Amino acid sequence: MALDWLLAAPLPPAVPRQRLLYQRLRDAILCGRIAAGTRLPASRRLAAELGIARNSVMFAYEQLVAEACLVADRHGTRVAALPALAADSGRTHDRTLPGLSQRAAAAMQPEVGRDAETLPFAPGVPDLAGFPFRSWRASLDRAWREASTRQLGHTPYGGEPALRAALAGQLSTVRGFAVKPEQIVITGGTQSGLDLCARLLADSGDTAWVENPGYLAARAALNLAGLKVHAVAVDGEGLAPGEGDWQAHPPRLIMVTPSHQYPTGQVMSLARRLTLIERARAEGAWIIEDDYDSEFRRGGPALPAIYGVQHDAPVVYAGTFSKTLYPGLRIGYLVLPSAVADDFVRAAGQATRPGQGIEQAALADFIRRGHYTTHLRRMRKRYALRQRALRAALAAHPGAEVRVSGGEAGLHLVLWLPQERADVEVEARANRLGLGVRALSRYAQAPVRCNGLVLGYGNIDEAQIDGLVRRLRQAMAV
Amino acid sequence: MALDWLLAAPLPPAVPRQRLLYQRLRDAILCGRIAAGTRLPASRRLAAELGIARNSVMFAYEQLVAEACLVADRHGTRVAALPALAADSGRTHDRTLPGLSQRAAAAMQPEVGRDAETLPFAPGVPDLAGFPFRSWRASLDRAWREASTRQLGHTPYGGEPALRAALAGQLSTVRGFAVKPEQIVITGGTQSGLDLCARLLADSGDTAWVENPGYLAARAALNLAGLKVHAVAVDGEGLAPGEGDWQAHPPRLIMVTPSHQYPTGQVMSLARRLTLIERARAEGAWIIEDDYDSEFRRGGPALPAIYGVQHDAPVVYAGTFSKTLYPGLRIGYLVLPSAVADDFVRAAGQATRPGQGIEQAALADFIRRGHYTTHLRRMRKRYALRQRALRAALAAHPGAEVRVSGGEAGLHLVLWLPQERADVEVEARANRLGLGVRALSRYAQAPVRCNGLVLGYGNIDEAQIDGLVRRLRQAMAV
Repeated sequence: MALDWLLAAPLPPAVPRQRLLYQRLRDAILCGRIAAGTRLPASRRLAAELGIARNSVMFAYEQLVAEACLVADRHGTRVAALPALAADSGRTHDRTLPGLSQRAAAAMQPEVGRDAETLPFAPGVPDLAGFPFRSWRASLDRAWREASTRQLGHTPYGGEPALRAALAGQLSTVRGFAVKPEQIVITGGTQSGLDLCARLLADSGDTAWVENPGYLAARAALNLAGLKVHAVAVDGEGLAPGEGDWQAHPPRLIMVTPSHQYPTGQVMSLARRLTLIERARAEGAWIIEDDYDSEFRRGGPALPAIYGVQHDAPVVYAGTFSKTLYPGLRIGYLVLPSAVADDFVRAAGQATRPGQGIEQAALADFIRRGHYTTHLRRMRKRYALRQRALRAALAAHPGAEVRVSGGEAGLHLVLWLPQERADVEVEARANRLGLGVRALSRYAQAPVRCNGLVLGYGNIDEAQIDGLVRRLRQAMAV
Repeated sequence: MALDWLLAAPLPPAVPRQRLLYQRLRDAILCGRIAAGTRLPASRRLAAELGIARNSVMFAYEQLVAEACLVADRHGTRVAALPALAADSGRTHDRTLPGLSQRAAAAMQPEVGRDAETLPFAPGVPDLAGFPFRSWRASLDRAWREASTRQLGHTPYGGEPALRAALAGQLSTVRGFAVKPEQIVITGGTQSGLDLCARLLADSGDTAWVENPGYLAARAALNLAGLKVHAVAVDGEGLAPGEGDWQAHPPRLIMVTPSHQYPTGQVMSLARRLTLIERARAEGAWIIEDDYDSEFRRGGPALPAIYGVQHDAPVVYAGTFSKTLYPGLRIGYLVLPSAVADDFVRAAGQATRPGQGIEQAALADFIRRGHYTTHLRRMRKRYALRQRALRAALAAHPGAEVRVSGGEAGLHLVLWLPQERADVEVEARANRLGLGVRALSRYAQAPVRCNGLVLGYGNIDEAQIDGLVRRLRQAMAV
């Protein structure tokens, strides 16, 4: 029986040479190309036929006997009786697979900006070069030195106790919250926090409201949790639901960014916040307050968070260290009303099996020693300078008829474009010039129309701003 | 106007003393207890009335003006016109909130074993004291020293390239997989990987099969993703679906643990694996192969993973470092058929916004330098010794009529109990003695009945085994 085809090209990728015969022989047996009961040549003979070492043949035979694909007896080696797979494995690549779910397809965002995080105007990227490596690594080292075997396991429900305590203190000082550590759940960042809210507070088929224009990743989390997403317009005071929204699309979840609406930068008025709480309570809806970037406020004191306005209002507050420290850290948190905290904490712990206890202990240490506050203060000044420089450059360059908004908090501005300059086209040209801007219209859903650019300034060098704005003007000129 | 009630007890928790007046005054204004338009006393007068420093009153007034709760004009300070919140905030604790979702309630597991991870027989806990702190920290240090600002951001889709490459190599050597790094998605551990499969490969209302008895956390992930869970019995060859299962509950996902069925320890036969692939393909279903604990196999070579049997079969392979390194690490992975890898990788990247680039680089370094293989070899020997000692102790003690199974791979044995000893009762007694065992019946759903105990031996000290088994016998005696 000739078996020389076993080692014929094309060779599969990444298979170590010595395993090639084993792999090919197994494929041939499993797909039925060598029939059950077939006797194989003695290892010496097959090695000679194929021109390979006898050891390779013996390895293949022994392994396949162990896997029950071959049977060895006193007459030699034969192929075992197995259900054959339908087709030759060499041709399987064109067989169709079930594919991804419809919700995965719906949640998939446009590819633009995939690698844009490293580009100068990329939104949502903090000053990575300003990250306090030394003090952070010192906190990490301490946490590892003091690590208990308990911290190598899953964290207790809700996260590492030291971090929950440090955060409760931080939120009291900065946000005026009177929260106990037990009301805090440490998450894997904002996206993971929104995902937990979507799954633990709403069922498949429930309606979730998002801001229009709004944060795209929030929509993805809601879609993937099986929720119906309804986009509600934003006006000068923030989310502006009409009676039609409440009647035709009664929400279970209402996602808002009141401190600094994403992406327009609008601050939600206090009156609007109070109305939203009352109405949400009456309708049995949860408000999810994504307080992203509130740490980087400029000017006077912040409006109270929706969460802080009233004890036990139906509000979950979501925060993150992605922009105050670094995005890859993947530590964020949710703050819950005390009445549901225990249940939510327990469900979240079972949904995600949380860990990273040592990193969380390091972060608690970093906060307790004051490094976090120091870093925030430094960054706040730096971002204020950058924003001022960017606004000045945008105003100074010829063709400065454009309107700039946002920037009361956060790390980005919105540059509104005249209707005749389609923002997606400007985006494409700007990104060919290596700028990393994002078109505002990508964040909107009909009937809302937006035309502009989101310009992140967290990670740019002031010295380069003039040159970057010159390139931006170039992209805006037709 | 007397305002002395503002500082009456009870004092809210965690509010700094100097902010107390501010907080109470804000609550009173927002809930309408002090009406819109009301003039407040001058700061000096209020300070005298309350017996506090005038600065505290001024702080409160200024902050509340900034928040638009108060209006300051030349006549003094008055309460702004705001929509009042419905009730006195002091009484809000008994108002009802919307509560958790139905799926969260359904996914909630019994509290037993919540803190059991630190107890000797806790299933699924590896030898934490044997963790190679020194070489791991050296890899972490190197990764931090060499960290690029890119690695502080989100990782590229699929995870840190160095780790995907190292894993492809590892899987080729250990599992015989011919996979490219592009087919691998780094996840936040098995639970996060199963959750991704549930959301990206199935839609709300689709049916997912689980093994019966089976891994409880898998059910939780499926429930939370809005899937219908159908439990399929396991026999001596592994998952044993009848024609009725296929007809009445056609699956979109089939979750299996073929290397070492959880919790019974059964190995799925090759014939059963091949049949499952063929049938899943015909029905348009995905097989999710959770290959947990296959690293700790004893005896001969492993059966091929279902994933490796055929190129581009509808199989996703899930692995984790939780038990080979430590549970809190939160790094696992999925391996995908090449035909869907690109789409899945992109959808997963958008669903989770992955990070931990530096930890992933450290793990790649740890694998490349051979520390991972060395550690696995050491642990494999150690776990084999522990298992042997545990089996010997179980056999030696009086009343040894019980049957022990499992242990061909992994970190636990199953001790089957006679029907007259209800396992949940033995569990309760054993855990009162600090043992941390789990009742087998907790993993089963009707009509399957199991009665026994799952005994983890990953994290116990051989010297203590005799004493522990003596306590276990005590719990089993009526």
